Amino acid sequence: MKYNPLNMELLEELQLLLEIPVKYDQETLERYSKDETAELQAVIPEVVIFPLDTKEVSEVMKFANSHLIPVTPRGAGTGLSGGAVPVFHGIVMSLEKMNRILEFDAGNMMITVEPGVITGEIQKLADRHGLVYGGDPCSSESSSIGGNIAENAGGNKVMKYGPTGYHVYGLEVVLPSGEVTSLGGKMIKDVSGLDLIHLMVGSEGTLGIVTKITLRLLPKPKYSVALLVPFPDIDTAIAAVPKLMTGAGVVPTSLEFMDGSSIKAACSFLNIEFPYSDAGAHLIIEVEGSSKDSVFEDYVKLGESAIEAGGLEAFVADNRNTREKLWKARKSIAEALASVSPVHCMEDVSVPMANIPELIKTSEEIALNRNLEMIAFGHAGDGNVHVTFIKGDLDDSIWNETLPQALNELYSKTTELGGCISGEHGIGLKRKKYLASITDKAQLDLIRGIKKAFDPNYILNPGKIVDI
Amino acid sequence: MKYNPLNMELLEELQLLLEIPVKYDQETLERYSKDETAELQAVIPEVVIFPLDTKEVSEVMKFANSHLIPVTPRGAGTGLSGGAVPVFHGIVMSLEKMNRILEFDAGNMMITVEPGVITGEIQKLADRHGLVYGGDPCSSESSSIGGNIAENAGGNKVMKYGPTGYHVYGLEVVLPSGEVTSLGGKMIKDVSGLDLIHLMVGSEGTLGIVTKITLRLLPKPKYSVALLVPFPDIDTAIAAVPKLMTGAGVVPTSLEFMDGSSIKAACSFLNIEFPYSDAGAHLIIEVEGSSKDSVFEDYVKLGESAIEAGGLEAFVADNRNTREKLWKARKSIAEALASVSPVHCMEDVSVPMANIPELIKTSEEIALNRNLEMIAFGHAGDGNVHVTFIKGDLDDSIWNETLPQALNELYSKTTELGGCISGEHGIGLKRKKYLASITDKAQLDLIRGIKKAFDPNYILNPGKIVDI
Repeated sequence: MKYNPLNMELLEELQLLLEIPVKYDQETLERYSKDETAELQAVIPEVVIFPLDTKEVSEVMKFANSHLIPVTPRGAGTGLSGGAVPVFHGIVMSLEKMNRILEFDAGNMMITVEPGVITGEIQKLADRHGLVYGGDPCSSESSSIGGNIAENAGGNKVMKYGPTGYHVYGLEVVLPSGEVTSLGGKMIKDVSGLDLIHLMVGSEGTLGIVTKITLRLLPKPKYSVALLVPFPDIDTAIAAVPKLMTGAGVVPTSLEFMDGSSIKAACSFLNIEFPYSDAGAHLIIEVEGSSKDSVFEDYVKLGESAIEAGGLEAFVADNRNTREKLWKARKSIAEALASVSPVHCMEDVSVPMANIPELIKTSEEIALNRNLEMIAFGHAGDGNVHVTFIKGDLDDSIWNETLPQALNELYSKTTELGGCISGEHGIGLKRKKYLASITDKAQLDLIRGIKKAFDPNYILNPGKIVDI
Repeated sequence: MKYNPLNMELLEELQLLLEIPVKYDQETLERYSKDETAELQAVIPEVVIFPLDTKEVSEVMKFANSHLIPVTPRGAGTGLSGGAVPVFHGIVMSLEKMNRILEFDAGNMMITVEPGVITGEIQKLADRHGLVYGGDPCSSESSSIGGNIAENAGGNKVMKYGPTGYHVYGLEVVLPSGEVTSLGGKMIKDVSGLDLIHLMVGSEGTLGIVTKITLRLLPKPKYSVALLVPFPDIDTAIAAVPKLMTGAGVVPTSLEFMDGSSIKAACSFLNIEFPYSDAGAHLIIEVEGSSKDSVFEDYVKLGESAIEAGGLEAFVADNRNTREKLWKARKSIAEALASVSPVHCMEDVSVPMANIPELIKTSEEIALNRNLEMIAFGHAGDGNVHVTFIKGDLDDSIWNETLPQALNELYSKTTELGGCISGEHGIGLKRKKYLASITDKAQLDLIRGIKKAFDPNYILNPGKIVDI
């Protein structure tokens, strides 16, 4: 694609469309040149803008579309696939200032928000009203709902509540042309035309810019209990997962897994102690329900199954404090890792539940054969595991040569196991070439055709998901 | 579009691709000229075919694509929007012989089936394994899973389990070009590329032909109880719905509504008696749970709320027999109606929960102002109501003139109430012009652009959803 540079005249024209001053000082440009994907190169944009409402977004898109200037939309910048990296420079459009909660509709149990709202705020607001928002990415305290929608974020409660998209019932979208369209609304059922809502969800900002979001909330389960089950080693812990999922006749809200190194990293980062902190692995199992008895029954059943499957003990966290401490450790792993081992590659492979043990075994072999350090943690119950390769003491040149080989092998084994290369972080920039290598041409052509239908001039987040 | 007729030579070529003889006797052509949409004109196809596997479907699509012959895919023919009417004649491709259950995978709690499997079979198979398939259209004993996916069928359990699409994790699709592609699989989380699965779901056979389906099953709740609550009149019953949904802090699995005429029609059709059969309306409320106590608590709470809101009594159906009898009455309304009043128009409007009372009031006014008979029943808890206008004693000419006006008004009021014109039956042929009248051009153009990306020659189910 041939794009136009933003000369002074265009910059002035752009400024006229926006209340907040456009920014192009070096510090800002650098801050908005990357997201949290550890191993990607930053790309400096020409300008960063901060629209305040739908109209500004729309005007900017009309401007960019007519002048052929690439626009990279950006949420809170916590993405893990490089979706917000402005590969072709141009405009970075940060939605962080569009962060208002527009309506809390108790009668319909729906909430309408702007894309820049931090997801944790939505969770807390729902909670105060005795409701629950089912999305729960580990980044909920820092990621924005717009970014969650762009990636169809998963997180810790997908087994019970489904991924982000399952909570999205209405979207206002600014198309690359600048036209504004409304999809869905507050109705639970809608089959009037194609399902454009769930096409937008997970499209990583390549099809349109979401400017308003209506989410469904659900009654909050009155009781919830988390179990912490240490295991002597990773293989025993992982082998227990499919048994727990099918044996007890209960869908846990969460079934998370952390290997020994992950726990150590998180505990040291947070300066906390964990029981059995030397264990090879831990599972966190959370169950919810509307009666104390049923939750008790469920967690006893799950705890017993876990111990039968080799668990060393089942610690019950049945008060808010202990539960929050557990979750804080689990949710801090990525951050702890970034602080201890800044050069690493966190993966996001997803396989059918029954194949999780095989996936972990394979990952360990891949790392071992290439002298890479590896840790693994993640959402074991739904088969989505964050296999993470760490540079450690390796020479830069060896790491740079070895990592792509290890990833290739990991992705190809994941595919053989009936899985996919990303369960919740997305393709973005990071996994584009791998997606192309494992997806048939017919499907890649469909993605290109849909992109063309939405964005004929390829100005919106170009260079992501597939090459045109 | 200009299509080619199927001359003798092409018919012979087509036959060579298929094991089962192609059919073009008058009786078959007539049987496959319509679905169950009461008020639509039938259109006679040129030939009806019955492929047996993916390869045959693919070969036929290559043939049709190269010769520019329209293909109308068809499930069990129970559709209610004319999606299976072969508007441009050509080939009707019935998937009814592709009706094998391919795999029941207990370890992953997934089932893989062909599109012609009757949905009720999947429900029963899951049930025998202590699992549940969350889809439950009223037509489950006669509609096929392929058709459910084409329409993103809703039904009686959407509040708890979501519509059909929420259970679909893998699809094999034959594209209009004849290329075969696989989407998703048995993993719970997948964001590798655009979400083509949920674009296919609800696309009414216009984008591709689904030839293999992987569905997620869930542990079956151990206890379920249905309440039958008669109300003195329809307005009181409907006004109770939002209160029941938000007041008790419980998401019922079902919250169905039948007005007095619907109940009478169903009881007379089935030759059964209903308590309070003269009541103005009934609600059926079903709750499920993993403990007897929690289900008891929930239904007592809901029953008390219903009586507070004006319910005359709350009958508890806590054994399988009584529950099945209740549901049989509810599920027979459409059939009873077709037998008593064959000329009618069953609608499918869907509004935000809190606006259901207003929708019913408006519908009654529309009918009254135009001397139409009207009954209403449906999925009150999720705002999806089958407002049904009945011809009764009206002259044909008056009915034909009045009905489109009544529909126009109903759709426009529904839209004003923040709703959509179809919650579960789809646009198909029947609602195409109405969709065009209430949808902005940008969105219609996106639908056309997506259609073009999948089907550049417009040979697959042309004439549905939007005009090209």
